[in-house]
Amino acid sequence: MAFSKHTGAKPGDSEPVLQFRLRVLHQGEIALGPGKVELLTAIRTQGSISKGAKSLGMSYMRAWTLVKVMNRAFREPLVVVERGGIKGGTARLTPLGDRVLEIYTGLIEQSRLASEPGWRELRELLKK
Amino acid sequence: MAFSKHTGAKPGDSEPVLQFRLRVLHQGEIALGPGKVELLTAIRTQGSISKGAKSLGMSYMRAWTLVKVMNRAFREPLVVVERGGIKGGTARLTPLGDRVLEIYTGLIEQSRLASEPGWRELRELLKK
Repeated sequence: MAFSKHTGAKPGDSEPVLQFRLRVLHQGEIALGPGKVELLTAIRTQGSISKGAKSLGMSYMRAWTLVKVMNRAFREPLVVVERGGIKGGTARLTPLGDRVLEIYTGLIEQSRLASEPGWRELRELLKK
Repeated sequence: MAFSKHTGAKPGDSEPVLQFRLRVLHQGEIALGPGKVELLTAIRTQGSISKGAKSLGMSYMRAWTLVKVMNRAFREPLVVVERGGIKGGTARLTPLGDRVLEIYTGLIEQSRLASEPGWRELRELLKK
């Protein structure tokens, strides 16, 4: 997780990267964070929890646990599983799931924009 | 690390918390992140690496490794060890260490401010 798919940063990159990892803590759980957001995005793209998990190199059980945590943290589920049973079936984001993903992406963008001047100063202090 | 000393968020808190974890990736290492910033703050308060580590429940070896990573990532060291040998001696932040800490704190504050409207919307979507 150190070099997330979110930023596209890789250990060999020569340019310093400022990585924003936002977590929503709610009722003793992490309702949302980089891993869960990555999973939501993968489920939306792949159309199933198992394929989404696979595309991230995540176990199905782990993915299912993350989905359960998110679904119970929000007013309505973010992910629904459709026909074919849990493992064989398709899954999609609900409108709330789409909205949550959109807000989270916006939070990162707004944070990045606001912290640009400080980041410019900080990166100048790093060794070349 | 799930419920960091930075935010003061605890599992039992009833109010949702948006936690900002910023990481600086540089030359294949995490030059700065929540753990290192916590350690810098503890070293400044405690006046030594070993006491700073102890106050965080961190091993001395781990703390020393984090200090080495930071010191080699920046143009000049952030932490210097003074008289009494490495383990027995005192340590302090250099002016660069103080500045880096200040910038990092500013980045978090600016991010928090900028993302306030989105966060207000997101928290309303959480289950009460």
